[in-house]
Amino acid sequence: MKNTLFFDGHINPEIFNEIKKERDFIGYYDLPLTDITYLSRLDKFTQKHIVVVGIGGSSLGTKAVNTFLSYKKKSDRVLHFLETTDPITLKSSLEKIDLNDSLFIIISKSGGTIETISVFKYILSIKPLNKEDFIFITDMDSPLFKLGMKEEIETFYIAKNVGGRFSVLSSVGLIPLYLMGYNVKKLLKGAKKIRSDFFDDDGEIKTALLKKASFYAEYMLHYNINALFSYSELFRDFNAWYVQLWAESLGKKQLHSKLNVGLTPVGLIGPTDQHSFLQLIVEGPKDKTVTFLKIKNFNDTTKVPNKNLKYLEGLDIVNEVKFSELINMQADSIIENLKERNVPLDIIEIDEANIYYMGQLFYYYELLTSLTGKMLDVDAYNQPGVEEGKRILKEKLQNKNL
Amino acid sequence: MKNTLFFDGHINPEIFNEIKKERDFIGYYDLPLTDITYLSRLDKFTQKHIVVVGIGGSSLGTKAVNTFLSYKKKSDRVLHFLETTDPITLKSSLEKIDLNDSLFIIISKSGGTIETISVFKYILSIKPLNKEDFIFITDMDSPLFKLGMKEEIETFYIAKNVGGRFSVLSSVGLIPLYLMGYNVKKLLKGAKKIRSDFFDDDGEIKTALLKKASFYAEYMLHYNINALFSYSELFRDFNAWYVQLWAESLGKKQLHSKLNVGLTPVGLIGPTDQHSFLQLIVEGPKDKTVTFLKIKNFNDTTKVPNKNLKYLEGLDIVNEVKFSELINMQADSIIENLKERNVPLDIIEIDEANIYYMGQLFYYYELLTSLTGKMLDVDAYNQPGVEEGKRILKEKLQNKNL
Repeated sequence: MKNTLFFDGHINPEIFNEIKKERDFIGYYDLPLTDITYLSRLDKFTQKHIVVVGIGGSSLGTKAVNTFLSYKKKSDRVLHFLETTDPITLKSSLEKIDLNDSLFIIISKSGGTIETISVFKYILSIKPLNKEDFIFITDMDSPLFKLGMKEEIETFYIAKNVGGRFSVLSSVGLIPLYLMGYNVKKLLKGAKKIRSDFFDDDGEIKTALLKKASFYAEYMLHYNINALFSYSELFRDFNAWYVQLWAESLGKKQLHSKLNVGLTPVGLIGPTDQHSFLQLIVEGPKDKTVTFLKIKNFNDTTKVPNKNLKYLEGLDIVNEVKFSELINMQADSIIENLKERNVPLDIIEIDEANIYYMGQLFYYYELLTSLTGKMLDVDAYNQPGVEEGKRILKEKLQNKNL
Repeated sequence: MKNTLFFDGHINPEIFNEIKKERDFIGYYDLPLTDITYLSRLDKFTQKHIVVVGIGGSSLGTKAVNTFLSYKKKSDRVLHFLETTDPITLKSSLEKIDLNDSLFIIISKSGGTIETISVFKYILSIKPLNKEDFIFITDMDSPLFKLGMKEEIETFYIAKNVGGRFSVLSSVGLIPLYLMGYNVKKLLKGAKKIRSDFFDDDGEIKTALLKKASFYAEYMLHYNINALFSYSELFRDFNAWYVQLWAESLGKKQLHSKLNVGLTPVGLIGPTDQHSFLQLIVEGPKDKTVTFLKIKNFNDTTKVPNKNLKYLEGLDIVNEVKFSELINMQADSIIENLKERNVPLDIIEIDEANIYYMGQLFYYYELLTSLTGKMLDVDAYNQPGVEEGKRILKEKLQNKNL
């Protein structure tokens, strides 16, 4: 991948060294190097339907990869996600699943996520808990882990120091992706490439990451919104993954000042959102940075045919243009337009839509998040703000049963 | 629907009067009163696949309704959307369509939208243009309108003074929805209810709308982000419709000062985004208002079963709770939490997930947009900022062919 910045940022060697030190206690950095032979424990499962039961970091990464690659899927298996307590969605999702030919993967880092356990219990009302049809992925020694041991369920753990939203390259993402037949080695290889570019080389990616993080942090009060404008529908769930990573990691009290800081992520898809959000970027307040995410080679030759339509002669200029060229020319036109308007922007371009580049993108964004968090003086790895809502819910549930 | 505000805003009778006057020249206000007998012209079409070819305002409203109601769909017909120039998505969408049993609805207000005409041309390379399989919806006298007349295609017009993003209750939305068997009369009836609540009564909805718009405008520099936190997956595409309406209407130069103003919409889905964006709302900068959108009655009795799981006894409090209750308790917990944190919030509650309330929601948000636009001193109905990008694209296409 190539990352080109059209704004200036500082290179702060101290921040780089602090991130380097974080590798001793933050687990995601070394995930691309982890031994993954444990995945062979999955080969005994032959079900057609793979059902991920999990929410947030337990599903978003897997979804991002699956949506990105579903167009070239070779497996006969079907991947489903049960994420929500919404009864209508839960029921319509279950209708698409053959319960007698399904492997349920229950994923909860804490082992006690209320949405996940509620849906898990619902599944247990139609299917007994047995080691043929269930897998657990959870923290070592969590309640779910203990249940797995007791019931002899194939149970995989998540390393304690790998946060949910940083877990796509751990068992959380690799297990469902491996079951779906995706080449997870190539996924890790992509991540490893960015890892060594950043930690071992003084190359372009390292420079881009350091400059970008410093610009975002320095101008946080001015540019409080960071839009990711991805030019392909394939990126729709990658955008959602980015939104979680960015919002939940950076929206925090500062460690030293206790000031509430953060940056607001917005996920956009081109060209669709040229007809929606774009007007606000062009003529609204100058409070946004924009990252354009492009696929250089769609490996597709579909063209606009050479049709001349009466009265629509003005659009004959698009005849014989490949759609893959057209979409990238659309991106380039908006880039040119926003450059003229002095919107701080950068471009990430990947060569093609394959799993190797997905691995690069995951690791790139994780590093960017760590760096920006460090510069904003926040702990990028916790989420204390969501605990209060959980406590209130438990109270409500308890009072209900009185 | 009920709208409860937990912040204070002014009631400005002048703004109300200005909006009242707008009814003479802005077309969307009276759409709920329009004669829709023209829809009977559609009864001759019997195709199974209904394919909407359109982008932005030409598809987002229809999608919002279809996603909201698909769970209770009675029709055998299947609705498809061809929105984008992304070649991979275009091809995989076409694979799902039986071309010999499809009605293509080409929708473009200007009649020359480059994405729509490019996809239309592509369809024409596999299917001849004939009056049995095509419908056009466009501005009177647009190039597409003229082509329709020439080729004797069933062509419907959009009133000149109805903007794309305000067009869901016009032929743009009603035609595909009618073909899909949805009760469009009930949709309009819902909109009409809000229309008369606002223009003819001094009731709660009018008060809420006026206060909300004035608060959003007055504190624009402070709260520059407006999150819509919708508690059901059914709202996913309604959120996207809201994002377009809000961003494209309000992100503008002020009419008098030429200052760049605007408010940034964010669409969230609960409870999923409690595990994503919520942390940023709770602990990030206080730059967001939040509207909670709730369904009072899901008409669903699915329960968490009375299962006790070893080690997970702490979650037995959720046993025997209906999922419909659980999701609303989750919303209420977050509402309570954010109230304590002084986040400016309001709640919109609809009785159930039916098309009548969808009509109410559309009209409510359109009015809120008009009011907020008026208070921000912008023209809510144009989109001059997107023209420049289109011009650059045309230039690029022209140079390519030299």
